[in-house]
Amino acid sequence: MKIYLHQTHHNVADFESIFSYLKDQFSSQKEKRPGIHIFPELFLTGYPLQDLCLTSSFIASYLEFQDKINIWAQEELSQNYGTDEVCLLMGGLNYHFCASDVPLKDEVVDHIKNVIFQLVPGQKLNAIYTKQLLPNYDIFDEQKYYKAGTQSQILDWNGISLGLLICEDMWASNVHAIDPCLDLYNYAVTEKKELHALINLSGSPYNLFKREQRVSRAKELSELFQVPFIYVNRVGGEDEILFDGSSVVVAQKDILCTGKFFEADLLEFELDPQKKVLLTEAREKERAQKNTWEGLFSPLVTGIGEEAGLPRLKVIDRKLGQEIVRALSFGLQEYAQKSGFKKFLVALSGGMDSALVLAITRLSLQEGQELEAVYMPGMFSRSISFELSDQICKKLGVKLYSLPIKFLHTNCRNLFGQVFGEKMEGLCDENIQSRLRGALIYGRSNQTGAMVINTSNKSELAVGYSTQYGDSVGAISMLGDLYKTEVYQLANILNELYPGIIPEEIITRPASAELREDQKDEDSLPPYERLDVILECLLSYRYNRQDILKMGFSEEEVNRVINLYRRSEYKRAQFSPIIKIKSKSFGFGYRIPLSKNGKFY
Amino acid sequence: MKIYLHQTHHNVADFESIFSYLKDQFSSQKEKRPGIHIFPELFLTGYPLQDLCLTSSFIASYLEFQDKINIWAQEELSQNYGTDEVCLLMGGLNYHFCASDVPLKDEVVDHIKNVIFQLVPGQKLNAIYTKQLLPNYDIFDEQKYYKAGTQSQILDWNGISLGLLICEDMWASNVHAIDPCLDLYNYAVTEKKELHALINLSGSPYNLFKREQRVSRAKELSELFQVPFIYVNRVGGEDEILFDGSSVVVAQKDILCTGKFFEADLLEFELDPQKKVLLTEAREKERAQKNTWEGLFSPLVTGIGEEAGLPRLKVIDRKLGQEIVRALSFGLQEYAQKSGFKKFLVALSGGMDSALVLAITRLSLQEGQELEAVYMPGMFSRSISFELSDQICKKLGVKLYSLPIKFLHTNCRNLFGQVFGEKMEGLCDENIQSRLRGALIYGRSNQTGAMVINTSNKSELAVGYSTQYGDSVGAISMLGDLYKTEVYQLANILNELYPGIIPEEIITRPASAELREDQKDEDSLPPYERLDVILECLLSYRYNRQDILKMGFSEEEVNRVINLYRRSEYKRAQFSPIIKIKSKSFGFGYRIPLSKNGKFY
Repeated sequence: MKIYLHQTHHNVADFESIFSYLKDQFSSQKEKRPGIHIFPELFLTGYPLQDLCLTSSFIASYLEFQDKINIWAQEELSQNYGTDEVCLLMGGLNYHFCASDVPLKDEVVDHIKNVIFQLVPGQKLNAIYTKQLLPNYDIFDEQKYYKAGTQSQILDWNGISLGLLICEDMWASNVHAIDPCLDLYNYAVTEKKELHALINLSGSPYNLFKREQRVSRAKELSELFQVPFIYVNRVGGEDEILFDGSSVVVAQKDILCTGKFFEADLLEFELDPQKKVLLTEAREKERAQKNTWEGLFSPLVTGIGEEAGLPRLKVIDRKLGQEIVRALSFGLQEYAQKSGFKKFLVALSGGMDSALVLAITRLSLQEGQELEAVYMPGMFSRSISFELSDQICKKLGVKLYSLPIKFLHTNCRNLFGQVFGEKMEGLCDENIQSRLRGALIYGRSNQTGAMVINTSNKSELAVGYSTQYGDSVGAISMLGDLYKTEVYQLANILNELYPGIIPEEIITRPASAELREDQKDEDSLPPYERLDVILECLLSYRYNRQDILKMGFSEEEVNRVINLYRRSEYKRAQFSPIIKIKSKSFGFGYRIPLSKNGKFY
Repeated sequence: MKIYLHQTHHNVADFESIFSYLKDQFSSQKEKRPGIHIFPELFLTGYPLQDLCLTSSFIASYLEFQDKINIWAQEELSQNYGTDEVCLLMGGLNYHFCASDVPLKDEVVDHIKNVIFQLVPGQKLNAIYTKQLLPNYDIFDEQKYYKAGTQSQILDWNGISLGLLICEDMWASNVHAIDPCLDLYNYAVTEKKELHALINLSGSPYNLFKREQRVSRAKELSELFQVPFIYVNRVGGEDEILFDGSSVVVAQKDILCTGKFFEADLLEFELDPQKKVLLTEAREKERAQKNTWEGLFSPLVTGIGEEAGLPRLKVIDRKLGQEIVRALSFGLQEYAQKSGFKKFLVALSGGMDSALVLAITRLSLQEGQELEAVYMPGMFSRSISFELSDQICKKLGVKLYSLPIKFLHTNCRNLFGQVFGEKMEGLCDENIQSRLRGALIYGRSNQTGAMVINTSNKSELAVGYSTQYGDSVGAISMLGDLYKTEVYQLANILNELYPGIIPEEIITRPASAELREDQKDEDSLPPYERLDVILECLLSYRYNRQDILKMGFSEEEVNRVINLYRRSEYKRAQFSPIIKIKSKSFGFGYRIPLSKNGKFY
């Protein structure tokens, strides 16, 4: 029996394009592909929908779309395929309504289920399984919207038996009350059902090491059930969240096939109807030992508890670096295309972050797109900053404009002196430069319709080392999930892959905001290699002040970092969406009260 | 038996001050108050904690705090009171841990329960009831953090029997799977338990009409159970969310006592031990008819479905207007005090919004606080705008600075002309003025340490009629939950209460951003009285394009509003926290994907 894995890429709620895809895949013009066709979780709606799934406009459109699919299955699809020829298994939402007390509208949503719909020619969408483990941590709010299923299911179709799972269902954990995999196992035993394979329809967000973790867990489950594990994931970038595809079929310890990374794909493989397994011995729920849910959220730090030296961030090697560049490019392009941008705009400072943003944006550029850079020197900018900005733009073939702010800055100083009788100095004088730059780059954006890409990194964001409405502006943040030391690593990897793409001096010169004479980051902050580790430990929520001190960091440094971190929640609250590539990032999944609660850690 | 309602006001996780309060209330210096002392939901931790409740630093501090309370109860408290003299019922979190697979730390949180702790002299904190209905809609994420209880409880202490509820437990709904009130009722019947009263420990956010809704529901429940309903709510402002207190005791249709509004309070009343009720007849779950949960979330619109005329926003009358001013003042002060601000800064435009913000801020000013206004005229500002700004500042006794941006604006125009060879015009020329103002007012904020109060209103926010990083800047938004027509109503009410506080001409002159020659809001937007109704219908999620057209609005206007609304999600995503006074507001509880999904509505 042929199994097809449709690793699809559609915008959220783009019913037209989803319907076109379906019609095209099974049209009479196309070579017939009998068998079982598996689509991702929530293929019919897109994901995440957030509150969209509660709005009457969305619901009405979606119900209409479901009707269309049913008519299509009964007419066109059944003209092209016999009832026993194809079986479509598609993720979607299943709405249940109740009459409402509210006199304004007749019906309100009673509950919504995240289900697998089965569709065969001549019939209608039939919900055969409801997701049981609804993630509700970090970026996930599924229990806010969906009602969990409580019943394991095995689909029998044309002599093939498939155990059904949706995304999170596959993960074991100490913190989950249920284990849908083990329940499915025992259900197969109790019902004396044979199994040919397990399938998992997923909408699983990308982060570093996630692919490896999914495959490890898939192998574990394939070994447990003694049948192949078929994993179908979606592709897409939804604001900050990326879906990488990377669908995979695993049999015991072997990977049979793998879907593309951040690209739509269609995989197929042959499932032998003779190779079926009858599980006979029920299993007790036992404490998960490896490939656990908790493991997905460990801080990316190594060397904790080791005798020699301080812990350090996990190193980004060349392979991982390439993966990150691909993810960031994809996230940028998705946001731009969905928002209708064809032009990009980057403010260069002559420093590391903006250079890396420029390089990655340039590498991601598609036909018909344009990229422009602006250098906005102030009175403390060193001439080398312009030279380096000019060098990288020449290297990348990007048009560079120099838009000096010195005169505006001086005007502001004079204005403040006259009006307030107080000299503009200190933080005020530093920030005004950054905010003038913010105003100017958005002026240019208004002029050309270009999308401004934010250039802040995760270290700056964490300690508030940026100017609100100044260098923190942007439609989306490319590096907001990478610590400064990782930014450097990534720049070096890019230079290995594309020799000389980033001028070496940008990488080696000391980091500086150039907002006052001879300013250097390290005058205000601990060295980044220590800062970044402390931050990663704090952000995981698992470490407090005492834990970090025990690692060997100095009390003065730890206190300084914690204070900076706690005091800058308000800046992060108004920050742009950040392309998420880590399990713990700032953004939607990070929810800490803004008002000071400085006594902790 | 004396019942005390402690309507407390503490910062989130401020264990020191919570402990001091407890010690003080029951100290030997104070007159003895034997009886039952009831505190709000999560009194011991504060609320909402968001991810704080998952951080190891918070957990460690909280566990230590619980230990201290236990020691205090066994020592100091039991020296002052006998075991049968006082019973404290306090909301708090109850942590359960499990050993973790993760080698980094020994324990992870297994689950957290939102409970009522009973504390009597000589004993320890004893969790006697777990909240069953965990709100998980809009701003609420309780199912993200807490595990629900499943068992009704009646506390028997010293011959008094109290039915226990926590906050949301009291609400009936079609969309809730359980009804803890009815379960409690049937539990009392089955167990043949007599009842003296129901108590509800609450942390219930404020919004318009919420007090009335709580009281209606309290009366309904008091009638059902035939005993008094005792409701204890907390006071506080947590970023955007306000808690108003307004604790209340209701007996059948009567209100026995009411706590203060937005102020800590201590209520007491006498519960007659003889007046107890034995419920004998079990009840079926029936469809809720009134005082339902859904009713809390109806759009604030009247006249839908009426023959004559278009629907309209509910009018703000004088009483409601006073309530709103109180709420906004409280929210502002809470944010300022928690963030350590003693100075406020408002940018005046000569228009309605900024004038109202200034007036309310002035009225809220406390000893030792300062307020300053800045007027930043551009080349399209009319002289009347300055005169009106000057008038209101004189009236309010607020220092006004005039900080012209004309020269800076001209510089920007020249710079753009020179560098880009393109004239600064249109949107670019409009926005740069607004952003220069944003930069300057934050310059002043840096200089004095003042908190900038945002002056945008809900109508502007909804249609994106503001400049990102320009007039949309601010630490907190005072009017972001009030439509423009409501801003005018509130201004008129203020003028009734404090004659002449806002110059009449500010209220009557046509609204304008003054960013180009003769600009008026109504050139770009439908008249606010229609715009605001359309927006309120859309924001409730219950109305789509067709529904709104059926109300009688023109297709052209509805489409225009919907397009503006859908296209401005990105602006709202980077907006400041908004003081929330409606059931549906922009901010944390409003979660719509930013990328365009323009096909809906």
